[in-house]
Amino acid sequence: MFFSKNVFGVTCLLCIFCTELVFAQNTATWIWYPGDYEIWLGNSMQNRRTERGSFLPPFWKYDSHYIMVDYSKEFNLTAPEEIEIYAEGDYNVKINSNLIHGMPEKLLIPAGKQKLNFKVYAQERVPALFVKGKTIISDQTWKVTNEDKEWIDESGKVSDISGTKYLLAGSWNFYDPNSPPSKFRLPTEPQAAAHITKNEKSWLVDFGKETFGFVKLHGLRGKGRLTLYYGESEEEALGTKTCETLDELEINNSVSRDTTLTGSRAFRFVNIHFDDGISFDSVSMLYEFLPAADRGAFKSSDEQLNRIWEVSKYTLHLNTREFFIDGIKRDRWIWSGDAYQSYLMNYYLLFDSPSVTRTLLANRGKDPVTSHVNTIMDYTFYWFMGIYDYYLYSGDKLFIRQFYPRMQSLMDFCLARRNKDGLLEGKTGDWVFIDWAEGLSKKGEVSFEQLLFCRSLEAMALCANVAEDTDGANQYGALAKDLKAKVFSIYWNEGKGAFVHSRVNGSQTDHVTRYTNMFAIFFDYFNEVQKQSVKKNVLMNDKVQKITTPYMRFYELEALCAIGEQEHVLKEMKDYWGGMLNLGATSFWEKYDPNEKGVQHYAMYGREFGKSLCHAWGASPIYLLGKYYLGVKPTSPAYQTYLIEPVLGGLQWIEGKVPTANGDISVYCSTKQIKVKGDTGIGTLRFKSKNKPVSKGNNIRVIGNGVFELTIEKGKEYVIAYSAKL
Amino acid sequence: MFFSKNVFGVTCLLCIFCTELVFAQNTATWIWYPGDYEIWLGNSMQNRRTERGSFLPPFWKYDSHYIMVDYSKEFNLTAPEEIEIYAEGDYNVKINSNLIHGMPEKLLIPAGKQKLNFKVYAQERVPALFVKGKTIISDQTWKVTNEDKEWIDESGKVSDISGTKYLLAGSWNFYDPNSPPSKFRLPTEPQAAAHITKNEKSWLVDFGKETFGFVKLHGLRGKGRLTLYYGESEEEALGTKTCETLDELEINNSVSRDTTLTGSRAFRFVNIHFDDGISFDSVSMLYEFLPAADRGAFKSSDEQLNRIWEVSKYTLHLNTREFFIDGIKRDRWIWSGDAYQSYLMNYYLLFDSPSVTRTLLANRGKDPVTSHVNTIMDYTFYWFMGIYDYYLYSGDKLFIRQFYPRMQSLMDFCLARRNKDGLLEGKTGDWVFIDWAEGLSKKGEVSFEQLLFCRSLEAMALCANVAEDTDGANQYGALAKDLKAKVFSIYWNEGKGAFVHSRVNGSQTDHVTRYTNMFAIFFDYFNEVQKQSVKKNVLMNDKVQKITTPYMRFYELEALCAIGEQEHVLKEMKDYWGGMLNLGATSFWEKYDPNEKGVQHYAMYGREFGKSLCHAWGASPIYLLGKYYLGVKPTSPAYQTYLIEPVLGGLQWIEGKVPTANGDISVYCSTKQIKVKGDTGIGTLRFKSKNKPVSKGNNIRVIGNGVFELTIEKGKEYVIAYSAKL
Repeated sequence: MFFSKNVFGVTCLLCIFCTELVFAQNTATWIWYPGDYEIWLGNSMQNRRTERGSFLPPFWKYDSHYIMVDYSKEFNLTAPEEIEIYAEGDYNVKINSNLIHGMPEKLLIPAGKQKLNFKVYAQERVPALFVKGKTIISDQTWKVTNEDKEWIDESGKVSDISGTKYLLAGSWNFYDPNSPPSKFRLPTEPQAAAHITKNEKSWLVDFGKETFGFVKLHGLRGKGRLTLYYGESEEEALGTKTCETLDELEINNSVSRDTTLTGSRAFRFVNIHFDDGISFDSVSMLYEFLPAADRGAFKSSDEQLNRIWEVSKYTLHLNTREFFIDGIKRDRWIWSGDAYQSYLMNYYLLFDSPSVTRTLLANRGKDPVTSHVNTIMDYTFYWFMGIYDYYLYSGDKLFIRQFYPRMQSLMDFCLARRNKDGLLEGKTGDWVFIDWAEGLSKKGEVSFEQLLFCRSLEAMALCANVAEDTDGANQYGALAKDLKAKVFSIYWNEGKGAFVHSRVNGSQTDHVTRYTNMFAIFFDYFNEVQKQSVKKNVLMNDKVQKITTPYMRFYELEALCAIGEQEHVLKEMKDYWGGMLNLGATSFWEKYDPNEKGVQHYAMYGREFGKSLCHAWGASPIYLLGKYYLGVKPTSPAYQTYLIEPVLGGLQWIEGKVPTANGDISVYCSTKQIKVKGDTGIGTLRFKSKNKPVSKGNNIRVIGNGVFELTIEKGKEYVIAYSAKL
Repeated sequence: MFFSKNVFGVTCLLCIFCTELVFAQNTATWIWYPGDYEIWLGNSMQNRRTERGSFLPPFWKYDSHYIMVDYSKEFNLTAPEEIEIYAEGDYNVKINSNLIHGMPEKLLIPAGKQKLNFKVYAQERVPALFVKGKTIISDQTWKVTNEDKEWIDESGKVSDISGTKYLLAGSWNFYDPNSPPSKFRLPTEPQAAAHITKNEKSWLVDFGKETFGFVKLHGLRGKGRLTLYYGESEEEALGTKTCETLDELEINNSVSRDTTLTGSRAFRFVNIHFDDGISFDSVSMLYEFLPAADRGAFKSSDEQLNRIWEVSKYTLHLNTREFFIDGIKRDRWIWSGDAYQSYLMNYYLLFDSPSVTRTLLANRGKDPVTSHVNTIMDYTFYWFMGIYDYYLYSGDKLFIRQFYPRMQSLMDFCLARRNKDGLLEGKTGDWVFIDWAEGLSKKGEVSFEQLLFCRSLEAMALCANVAEDTDGANQYGALAKDLKAKVFSIYWNEGKGAFVHSRVNGSQTDHVTRYTNMFAIFFDYFNEVQKQSVKKNVLMNDKVQKITTPYMRFYELEALCAIGEQEHVLKEMKDYWGGMLNLGATSFWEKYDPNEKGVQHYAMYGREFGKSLCHAWGASPIYLLGKYYLGVKPTSPAYQTYLIEPVLGGLQWIEGKVPTANGDISVYCSTKQIKVKGDTGIGTLRFKSKNKPVSKGNNIRVIGNGVFELTIEKGKEYVIAYSAKL
């Protein structure tokens, strides 16, 4: 949620290395129309959801890839060169506009200036291309279009005013011509069961912790029916009538055969029922995962906190797949609000940018925009915020430039839905979500939606600058400013010292909720008086309805951190996430209410086991600990400049690493010593000390009020002796 | 091109039976999201174009079907009923919102009120559905949507403000559950060669006339290469280096085998070259065609004219396939301007409405609109005009209502491209076509485009009324009126007594072309003085550049007919189409210039055999003879009222039939007798007679100036004795 517009100025536009970043790869790769493979893969992944054996696809609009794509690039060859051509679909080739006979698999390109065009067509998969020669290789520098508008006149002359729009090719990590994008599946590795309870006609298999993948039945033989009931809890696996996922198999094996289920499922327990004639030797599973290295790290003097970080990490890994998904058991869909939090956690653990862009692109889909992202108004805004954060952390200008038009059309959709007062309220077809919370009103003009709308307009203004749309930048900037003023005039209640929840029929409601107030803190919309007022009247006020989802706990705790309450937040983290651990959680949940007991914890949506026990938004400690305890955050795109502001929050020591696009930033902090090293940009270490800190050979600046700063140069380790001011 | 706004008034809206028409079918049929199968099939057909063995797809934007569709309908069952379910893709079923387990192939629906929902998902084909029970059948009454926006709250309660937009299902003629839409191929029948010239290493096969389909080699054996060079002319088939289409086969048959080529081609001649080791016994072909009965008929006292009508009919049949295409040899694409003429011919020969709607839908594609239809500005306007004509002839209100939003968004695209004077000029990406004509200027604001734009706005206003969009009707009506006034003030040149071709840099050009002037005649935009002036100064003026394509001859001759010049037009038809017949044409051409000689006739686009010798737009005599000689035309939608105005044009007698949605209209007319019978609506027979006409028991009205009228009631035959006033 770090998103301070103040740190972005002219410097963003001077960022040089972001494009170099993108083009670092120098080998041939499968390429496609950017965004198309992401949409295609998103459709195929999201449609793997099942509910008790039934196919259960998303209910929002699906988009499709462009089924015909033209790829082109100009080359100047010093010698003739043979290229190999691989395509997903039918294709043709032109050299300098001359159509080559047939669909050649190899082709000799003559020396000299040559313009190559490939048209590839496929309906069932993305029309991708792979070209490999000595110097001619398909990569992200190729131009692509879905309509080349190349008409000719009666004499055969090609039009010179075709007005074709080109983007640069999209790609990921498909470097093998024989492993095309449509064949992609995540890798798997075998995992053994931790414990099996064998009954006559059923086995209960416990894998020891939440996991995801394909159950494997070894030596399966006989004839009859076999049913697998999956459970994230033992109760769910045993609840054959109410468990959320199951698989039914008709077996007819005269000889025993190892059988791997074709559908991936989330579970810790599998309850296998089988007919008399059926038997098998053992049960294992193939764990399916996205290979993404843990580049971030965190350790502290508190063992429970370390465990919380580890389980958060596992929770995030399980939910980081083809895309950042919400939860592995049930939806397995790409929800923008859920993904937004995964993006932020990702910056502190994996720094896997392709996972961010894949998810953003799949979520956005294509024009025309016919509803909010996932149909949810707030989720549209998280999408905008996610793009801007991505730019801040990665510095990837090319992404902004290529997809700025999709940002514009989505924002046009929002702007067209404003009411006469310029505010958004839930119109027919708009889901106003905010949070899963009992009795939460969505009526009228909800302050939370206006606040996020305002933030999204600020994101548009900033991205307009990156895309060199000066008029757009001015227009979006003015709209944001105007809306921000309205938010304060309409929702701020001086008596309550807080924003109220909504306005209905032109009148402020009496209700104060945490949402708008806490977001306004880390949006930095408040002055100091307002901030302290909100802290007292809302954040620290038990009379204001409590938050029970890790989803909104994320922002609540971030707000508290942003006002320096790390010590309080540490206690909350240990209570809340520690509370789940105490109940035996091996991954963090969709929702946790300490007041519930036993199987109450598993129910949601009116269903006995409706709740997901492994939900991405449960992993937020990764983000909070990296950003507000290790205290590392970029202050300009791609960490060209950044801040390290370690805060112990009552711990004896903390240490860890934060990844960036160009190396890690390492931090150790105890009450007496700070050690930092950054492999990128120029950092500023900021800390409080009771005494005068010392760092051999380095110039520590006195900021005042016990605050000190030290400039951190790239690649150099700094050791500071000090006395923590707690 | 018949498109008189005057005949449409309040009556259009009172048309009752048009919806009944659509729902006449009472058996289960495959259904889909309307327009989606048409787009899918259009993509797959248009991609069959090859150029000398290379894949050559269209260069304009492709759209895709919605890959997830929800089908629903409510039933009230007196008894439980078992249904069979067939789907193209993965699917789920809900009964009264309850998800049914798995993907059932049969399902028992309980008695009582039941709402059935099917969600079907497919990427590679259209997610179609077929359901069959005793009373429950899938048909055009089912509701469909591509986004049902059905979200739930934390308790599982479904939202009541989802705002889902529904259309009624699309279908065609797929009544067999085991022949789903994705498997559809046109039928074929064997045809023998007319003559074969056998050489040692090549055969030249002549099928006697232009044809289309798959060559079949009987008893093919041996090992080596075999190449088929196709020709619409003998010269083309022999021109192995320059013929437009060819197929290369690698044969390796140890035993002889009948081999049918997989690619369909257009040809009269096939020149088969083969290696030494190869032999075969004989050659035939499978003629591929759309089964559509000839409901229209025409015969006259002139044998050459009858031959022209027959060859026109064959030409139209060859080009009426999955869609109305431009020509069978080369493009095989759906060009809106070409299709527009096929629609009109269709109304006088086949009256095959599904072919019209399939073509209109494939041509339109989906939003967002990113260019003109086929990238051609005029082709966008023909699309609008085609819809309106379709409504006039068929009375299909449902089609207008379902696709009015796509009309609106395409018109929005046009309106947004107007210049400061409200006119359209070719912007980057706009192909201004008009006609294939040497030196035809497309610069500045071309009068022809404004005229068609104006006509399209009139079509929008009329369709807005059908779709019950009163505001839209008013707005489009006002825009049309305004533009019409501009057309006259900007382009009418009193000195020349005609519209000039264009305005460049704010000044009228000096040039007069036929296009705008002839269209304005049958648009009925002129007063009588202007009409006669245009006749003299343009239509009958040999100094104005002549038209050499049957495409624009269509409109030129229609304009002449519209001012009563049938006798002149008859001579022109005999000269022009007769001219092609004299050169041995067995189908009519893309372009014909009587001044060319020999193989010159085959060249176009700078290619030796670039010209198509079987082009749909060559078949216009079907339309002209039906509408302006038999003289049958609707005066309100679906022939609720219509006119029969037979004109001999110098012939001794004519007779024929014109099909309608509800039976045929038969006309015989000689210089002494008229016989008419109509199976639909209320007709008005109008004719000129030198004496007082007599029809036993019928009341012939005197209109004046030798013109008489008789009301034609449905199902009754009328015989009138008269004396033709020529």
